[in-house]
Amino acid sequence: MSSTVIKGGTIVTADLTYKADVKVDGGVIVEIGPDLKGDMVLDATGCYVMPGGIDPHVHLEMPFMGTYSADDFESGTRAGLAGGTTMVVDFCLPAPDQSLLDALQMWHNKTSRANADYSFHMAITGWNERIFDEMKAIVEDKGINTFKHFMAYKGALMVNDDEMFASFQRCAELGALPLVHAENGDVVASMTAKLLAEGNDGPEGHAYSRPPEVEGEATNRAIMLADMAGVPLYVVHTSCEQAHEAIRRARQKGMRVYGEPLIQHLTLDESEYFNKDWDHAARRVMSPPFRNKQHQDSLWAGLQSGSLSCVATDHCAFTTEQKRYGVGNFAKIPNGTGGLEDRMPMLWTYGVATGRLTINEFVAVTSTNIAKILNMYPKKGAVLVGADADLVVWDPKRSKTISAKSQQSAIDYNVFEGKQVTGLPRFTLSRGKVVIEETTVKTEEGHGQFVSREPFTAVNKALSTWKELVAPRKVERSGIPATGV
Amino acid sequence: MSSTVIKGGTIVTADLTYKADVKVDGGVIVEIGPDLKGDMVLDATGCYVMPGGIDPHVHLEMPFMGTYSADDFESGTRAGLAGGTTMVVDFCLPAPDQSLLDALQMWHNKTSRANADYSFHMAITGWNERIFDEMKAIVEDKGINTFKHFMAYKGALMVNDDEMFASFQRCAELGALPLVHAENGDVVASMTAKLLAEGNDGPEGHAYSRPPEVEGEATNRAIMLADMAGVPLYVVHTSCEQAHEAIRRARQKGMRVYGEPLIQHLTLDESEYFNKDWDHAARRVMSPPFRNKQHQDSLWAGLQSGSLSCVATDHCAFTTEQKRYGVGNFAKIPNGTGGLEDRMPMLWTYGVATGRLTINEFVAVTSTNIAKILNMYPKKGAVLVGADADLVVWDPKRSKTISAKSQQSAIDYNVFEGKQVTGLPRFTLSRGKVVIEETTVKTEEGHGQFVSREPFTAVNKALSTWKELVAPRKVERSGIPATGV
Amino acid sequence: MSSTVIKGGTIVTADLTYKADVKVDGGVIVEIGPDLKGDMVLDATGCYVMPGGIDPHVHLEMPFMGTYSADDFESGTRAGLAGGTTMVVDFCLPAPDQSLLDALQMWHNKTSRANADYSFHMAITGWNERIFDEMKAIVEDKGINTFKHFMAYKGALMVNDDEMFASFQRCAELGALPLVHAENGDVVASMTAKLLAEGNDGPEGHAYSRPPEVEGEATNRAIMLADMAGVPLYVVHTSCEQAHEAIRRARQKGMRVYGEPLIQHLTLDESEYFNKDWDHAARRVMSPPFRNKQHQDSLWAGLQSGSLSCVATDHCAFTTEQKRYGVGNFAKIPNGTGGLEDRMPMLWTYGVATGRLTINEFVAVTSTNIAKILNMYPKKGAVLVGADADLVVWDPKRSKTISAKSQQSAIDYNVFEGKQVTGLPRFTLSRGKVVIEETTVKTEEGHGQFVSREPFTAVNKALSTWKELVAPRKVERSGIPATGV
Amino acid sequence: MSSTVIKGGTIVTADLTYKADVKVDGGVIVEIGPDLKGDMVLDATGCYVMPGGIDPHVHLEMPFMGTYSADDFESGTRAGLAGGTTMVVDFCLPAPDQSLLDALQMWHNKTSRANADYSFHMAITGWNERIFDEMKAIVEDKGINTFKHFMAYKGALMVNDDEMFASFQRCAELGALPLVHAENGDVVASMTAKLLAEGNDGPEGHAYSRPPEVEGEATNRAIMLADMAGVPLYVVHTSCEQAHEAIRRARQKGMRVYGEPLIQHLTLDESEYFNKDWDHAARRVMSPPFRNKQHQDSLWAGLQSGSLSCVATDHCAFTTEQKRYGVGNFAKIPNGTGGLEDRMPMLWTYGVATGRLTINEFVAVTSTNIAKILNMYPKKGAVLVGADADLVVWDPKRSKTISAKSQQSAIDYNVFEGKQVTGLPRFTLSRGKVVIEETTVKTEEGHGQFVSREPFTAVNKALSTWKELVAPRKVERSGIPATGV
Repeated sequence: MSSTVIKGGTIVTADLTYKADVKVDGGVIVEIGPDLKGDMVLDATGCYVMPGGIDPHVHLEMPFMGTYSADDFESGTRAGLAGGTTMVVDFCLPAPDQSLLDALQMWHNKTSRANADYSFHMAITGWNERIFDEMKAIVEDKGINTFKHFMAYKGALMVNDDEMFASFQRCAELGALPLVHAENGDVVASMTAKLLAEGNDGPEGHAYSRPPEVEGEATNRAIMLADMAGVPLYVVHTSCEQAHEAIRRARQKGMRVYGEPLIQHLTLDESEYFNKDWDHAARRVMSPPFRNKQHQDSLWAGLQSGSLSCVATDHCAFTTEQKRYGVGNFAKIPNGTGGLEDRMPMLWTYGVATGRLTINEFVAVTSTNIAKILNMYPKKGAVLVGADADLVVWDPKRSKTISAKSQQSAIDYNVFEGKQVTGLPRFTLSRGKVVIEETTVKTEEGHGQFVSREPFTAVNKALSTWKELVAPRKVERSGIPATGV
Repeated sequence: MSSTVIKGGTIVTADLTYKADVKVDGGVIVEIGPDLKGDMVLDATGCYVMPGGIDPHVHLEMPFMGTYSADDFESGTRAGLAGGTTMVVDFCLPAPDQSLLDALQMWHNKTSRANADYSFHMAITGWNERIFDEMKAIVEDKGINTFKHFMAYKGALMVNDDEMFASFQRCAELGALPLVHAENGDVVASMTAKLLAEGNDGPEGHAYSRPPEVEGEATNRAIMLADMAGVPLYVVHTSCEQAHEAIRRARQKGMRVYGEPLIQHLTLDESEYFNKDWDHAARRVMSPPFRNKQHQDSLWAGLQSGSLSCVATDHCAFTTEQKRYGVGNFAKIPNGTGGLEDRMPMLWTYGVATGRLTINEFVAVTSTNIAKILNMYPKKGAVLVGADADLVVWDPKRSKTISAKSQQSAIDYNVFEGKQVTGLPRFTLSRGKVVIEETTVKTEEGHGQFVSREPFTAVNKALSTWKELVAPRKVERSGIPATGV
Repeated sequence: MSSTVIKGGTIVTADLTYKADVKVDGGVIVEIGPDLKGDMVLDATGCYVMPGGIDPHVHLEMPFMGTYSADDFESGTRAGLAGGTTMVVDFCLPAPDQSLLDALQMWHNKTSRANADYSFHMAITGWNERIFDEMKAIVEDKGINTFKHFMAYKGALMVNDDEMFASFQRCAELGALPLVHAENGDVVASMTAKLLAEGNDGPEGHAYSRPPEVEGEATNRAIMLADMAGVPLYVVHTSCEQAHEAIRRARQKGMRVYGEPLIQHLTLDESEYFNKDWDHAARRVMSPPFRNKQHQDSLWAGLQSGSLSCVATDHCAFTTEQKRYGVGNFAKIPNGTGGLEDRMPMLWTYGVATGRLTINEFVAVTSTNIAKILNMYPKKGAVLVGADADLVVWDPKRSKTISAKSQQSAIDYNVFEGKQVTGLPRFTLSRGKVVIEETTVKTEEGHGQFVSREPFTAVNKALSTWKELVAPRKVERSGIPATGV
Repeated sequence: MSSTVIKGGTIVTADLTYKADVKVDGGVIVEIGPDLKGDMVLDATGCYVMPGGIDPHVHLEMPFMGTYSADDFESGTRAGLAGGTTMVVDFCLPAPDQSLLDALQMWHNKTSRANADYSFHMAITGWNERIFDEMKAIVEDKGINTFKHFMAYKGALMVNDDEMFASFQRCAELGALPLVHAENGDVVASMTAKLLAEGNDGPEGHAYSRPPEVEGEATNRAIMLADMAGVPLYVVHTSCEQAHEAIRRARQKGMRVYGEPLIQHLTLDESEYFNKDWDHAARRVMSPPFRNKQHQDSLWAGLQSGSLSCVATDHCAFTTEQKRYGVGNFAKIPNGTGGLEDRMPMLWTYGVATGRLTINEFVAVTSTNIAKILNMYPKKGAVLVGADADLVVWDPKRSKTISAKSQQSAIDYNVFEGKQVTGLPRFTLSRGKVVIEETTVKTEEGHGQFVSREPFTAVNKALSTWKELVAPRKVERSGIPATGV
């Protein structure tokens, strides 16, 4: 195997910025320092050399009404790489009564053409003894330490408090991390029925049916359940101040809660749903929906202060054709938008270039924090000797206008269409392989590998120690009376 | 009928303090002014003449395991009067599948010996079309404008979010006010099972099974549901900062939410459950349980700032014999303590005498605010011409040591045993009748009457106007595409 | 003297809404009830009979550069009456080294033509032993229980922390209530100099020079000083969330703090300062400046929840000619706008008609709360027998478009120009005299009287009791060592 | 120079935990990896190899009444090393009218016997053009990028808002970081005088004179000033919820504010001041004073959630003899306690061993965060090749009872006397030199060097970019009228 040297760049990590070359061999970083030599040289002059982005929240080739979302593991990872994202974490969604292990195998089967590394979260969509038992195997044998719970999608993926609390307690035992989609499913269902009954059937009805208070409530509830179970919590797609407030309030008490805003919620707002073009509005339908500017400000401040931990996309690419399934009934519009390809340039443009985030914070929220929380650091998310050479050589001067016409993603539109971004990859490397060179795509189908993740992070362990310390203690009594009535 | 004049006192209402005599005739106040004359004269020299207390939250003769709580409408109202409380509001609790109307009749049947006026809240303990229909009759024909919802007591009184949301929407239509007992019943049930399995079966297990976060979560959830339904909300027995914070946060957004701390939570703390005497601890078992001093400070501040609205007791007097039914299993200890007789003196002593509350605030939180929220002001809660002569002549110098031995309540203990209180009734009048004269009880069985309450308070109406103003509006579109997939 | 009966209306007070006639004689209310008779009858059919508005914050005939603000006590009170406001409280502003008593006499001298009742707040604009001594006379002999402190206007009215703390402690002793204009004067002065140096000399510079954080800081500081001094606090013209948050946070701890938003801040926003017409922008210059919509929402919610107590205007009517003194230097634009005439109709239209406020809350925040806080209730702010007959017969259907052309106020413009209001006085009565009958003005110069106000409200007394209870207690020690070093 | 290898340990940094040896040569880390060889071997079996602690807040040999605090740079750094702290940052305190440069030279003169590396913060204790000018030299020529401001100590070190705001703006220009001692000096002075006048002259008076609200206010004020100046802020010795709340609130808006709790405030409470032994109480006198348990909980939660950034000591070791200077007048008790030697073991015992903090968080708050904020990372605070070999080999099993008898610090008592700690250094290395080997001290006088720190951190730069983006923009107008009046 031949070596590659990234020369002349400035290495940027979550906590360091310094000039050095990076030498890569065998898919990993083998040396960092001045004046390195290798078989191939990548010119990083004027660029930042950063850990490749990790998107902790994608749905590739997701089943929908007998079809699938448009981006599969091939096009999806290709789109990610084009934007500097070198790893994705997808969600394994077992069907009702399906074994978690069988479902996981199905998900693994989809990945044969992946161009970049990936991992899985396992969804808990019901509760019974089998699931209880299989969770152990998922954690101990299958390299998955995260379990997703849907508080919305009533009648489908949703679990109730009882089930969720049981699963959270199981996560605590196994050293795993529960994730939640936090919206009150009962209210959403009821509001949806009411809106449709009133003739509010357009895409804006989607936004009306799940306002910020509904997300805030569910976030707050999940946090309480996690606290009682003695387990950390990760809240996916935190979109609004209400949810963020619940997270801040929990953290303020020392609770271990992570929030994940999406790049869409950081940069797009609810006015999209009021567009006169049905397709335009429907293409933006996702859950939670886009919010107003005040919520955006809240999310940015969360990234600045650390009350929110990372930026994802919830990439789930439904085509216009699929979106139109919901004409006349917004509840049937498949939920999801793209974003994988644009997350890093959009965050750079609206975050770093404006001064909201430092470049180190950019690396933290797009990569390093994610790798730490999901327990795959420093294999991923680091520029360290021994780490996987998932790297992006970031050119802060490269610029483009986002357009569906020129994107890698398979869908026929882009929710960021027309946005001018400055800051793009000059090179993207996936485990040492140069897969993107500016606009040239050199991905290799099947290059991507599954990333296994261990349970019992330091945070899980510390929390368990604390909870044991403050656990209920029985009062010893003598002379207890006989039972009455 | 003969007239009575209360002479020489200082009238104290929620917003006025002034010297005047009060003349009562025919059960109502007929004149207020200087130098009044009447057939009977009550000497109020050195005293405050205030609206009689209203306890918005009691359970008299409540069914339990084939027996009843010890205080019925006779002894309960007598105890109340002895402490200056001239009216109680009880909860009608329909059995599973029982008609609300039938249940209400059963509750009316219990009241024949009541010594003071009373009203009812109706509990919604399930959901179906019959209940939906009967709510209308309850409001429009039966004089009840408040509906109670239990978020705890899983498998018994508890309703789930769906049911509660439906009921709240119905309340909005009917102009009624929903009440909630806010604790997450799923978590309480799960924690209870876990504690018992671990051998934590003593009364302290009760407190462990329902910590503040569990109450805070449910309060927060109920508030969101009420907000989405467009109806005000009344949270009973707010015991902790977490629940209070949720209420404050809602009010801060302009939501119409009322919180009701209990005198027990204001003055007693969780250390009671760690008493080595099982009976002592079990007698204090109620839900929510007593909390620590920080929570007490929060509740007092809420009364000072107006984020909490009134003080109640949740009086539900189980005897020691009944409490002992839970020996070996705290979950079987009947939930409830006394307090009706002591609410006013305890609040005066710990609130007014310390400077935490003004005397006007004392009247507001023990009487006037309650009458307003429940929509029976100024018939009750006022010292105005035309108002019911439910009055207390309060002697701020009278003092006693609380003791079960000398109380009116039928139970064999008192959770405030040994507390020295200063500030007690010299006279209590129930619709003009002198029923208490210091330690002399002159109550008349059957004197008490049902107080009917109308729906559609000014707050209900204003909130509906606002919600209509900001209701979802459909986007008008042309050229909507044909349906897809 | 002849009697007047207001017939057929609905009486609305801060806590009651009921049908009754009101009989007025000798300037006071003498009877309230059905079917009253009197020498003159005012038809209140379809109207609400409410306590006349009280504006707690006006500056009439205020000195400015050798001239005065345009509205004096005659035109100012006439404007107020036309809009349903029957009393104003002005600020006596002693010149440097002027005796408080002399200044007060000067202020009294301005009022000979007042059409409506008035009172004064006394400003403390420096600190020395004379002021310390005179404060006692002001409170005990002059009927003034409120002292205003400016934290802004550096080099002019501003006092520093030391002086303010001393004054607050003096207020505590005298049972008085301190008021603050809360903006950090040092920062405002520094920002102003910087903006002017950068050429930002237009009216928008005024807004830039005093952003919300600067008001929030000062509010927070004043609250701490009041808390340490053991005295309640009244924050005038609370304009933003930052200041409101400080007030809420204080109240949440049980501190006794009142906030007063202005009708301008509730309904107008900062975009006014960016108007291309210099006059338009300059006419809106006041301190604090108008804020954005989020701040408005915060203020409305404060009125709904009770964290803000009342609505004022800071009416200080500078003409366009006077405003133009600041051409080329925004710091020289005299600070102030009108509002006295429009406060009640604007608040009704944007508050009651939208459902944000109930009609009772409208009365509370425009009149009753003010009368209570300033300790002149129930002489003012009440519809009670014996109260001053300062009444407004409010026609919720009367409508007009606000315009400078048709206003009573003496200035040549109106910041609410063009606003359509619905809800206006049919009659306004000043101590029994009908002074406004729809658009007909019947005011009588000199009819207005000074309203004396006593110290030691119930809140002052309660707070003192509490502070004494928790005051520092010396630790008794024996064996204290000899002094060292 | 000979090399040293630390063998068999687990390296723990702020974000990594892994097994590796560390090789040190020439004072720096030269290699990290398995099976390293060197001239000397330190057995780290069973130990954690961590960056040496950095105490960002000490006062060594501080002038007091013609004497000095007991620990100088020799004993102070020796004490630090004994507890695993390998670097301190002291405060240069210019005398009135003294040149900053002269003062700095004086401070440098004290350090000739330092056993460990050190740096300086420069205090700004007044304001004039000379100081303005010298700040540039301090930053650009003298390697100091932090300026301390005292909001307390009126008449001595205290600066007022005007001065502080000017200095903060200067810091913004120079890329420096302002620090504040946040207590309202006016109030403290006034309270002190009042307490002494009332005979409250004991050490408890110190606590009474500066309650949490006084610290919270000043913190809030400093934050506003920094925000207006466009500069990050570092709040030293954050001791209470009120100050912490102000910091959280600022961070919640995206402001760049750091808080520094002391190990004393995390583990000791106000009851110490009520000790009957005057010496005991006086020895604990520092500013801010110790607080109650609720404040401690707040501080711990801040470390957990990241709203507080690091742990310091404010080590300022006055002897009992010196403390006794304040017999009869608490205001004369010199402010300061020890802590340098105990910070790391105390934080480990009460933080890591309880599960409140992970071991990585321990490293972050005792070392790495400090190095980053003060801009000397990764020279300090890191275990990276090229970093200074300031290392501690931490034995989590070593245990001792803290006692003045056995300490390195020169004072005659210890505020943690009697505390059992588990977790102590096996070895401490200062730039590669083994200076502590369990209880054996091998320090070398004069080994310590000054650490120079550059301005313009990434956070400074990002904040400046943002502030420029949102800076005031002048409205362009035509037709501006002529000036008036």
